[in-house]
Amino acid sequence: MKFLGKVIITLKSGVFDPQGLTIKNALHTLGYRETQDVKTGKYFEIMIEAENQEKAQSRLSEMCDQLLANPVIEQYTSVAEPVKS
Amino acid sequence: MKFLGKVIITLKSGVFDPQGLTIKNALHTLGYRETQDVKTGKYFEIMIEAENQEKAQSRLSEMCDQLLANPVIEQYTSVAEPVKS
Repeated sequence: MKFLGKVIITLKSGVFDPQGLTIKNALHTLGYRETQDVKTGKYFEIMIEAENQEKAQSRLSEMCDQLLANPVIEQYTSVAEPVKS
Repeated sequence: MKFLGKVIITLKSGVFDPQGLTIKNALHTLGYRETQDVKTGKYFEIMIEAENQEKAQSRLSEMCDQLLANPVIEQYTSVAEPVKS
């Protein structure tokens, strides 16, 4: 069965986010003065072949721990959804 | 009222994604051979001050069009959620 894993990786709170600050300043310059804070992150969609949703989810979390996220400064949320074929 | 805008930006289908290919290869090397396809994208969380959800959502979409996404090669989904203070 196929599953689509969706992973969002963000910086842990307290970690300096210069890219977010730059985007906030750019938005202010463009006139979006209501913007108060911008956080940046990464997004991945991973197609996985697995027996069931539980296994897909557990393998996806392993991938995040081992490769996708840096556990020192980043946190992630991951969800594996069945794909209708 | 405060709203948290969540934006996911991905490459349009057909646009070459070398980063995704590299991650797929790395996952295979690490033993995650069930991985079939990896798409990469960007994620932003933007705190916005707005009168109501509709206005927050519309301003957020404008920000995506003007600054965050490149409409030639990227597509985005954005959602503005009220923040309980």
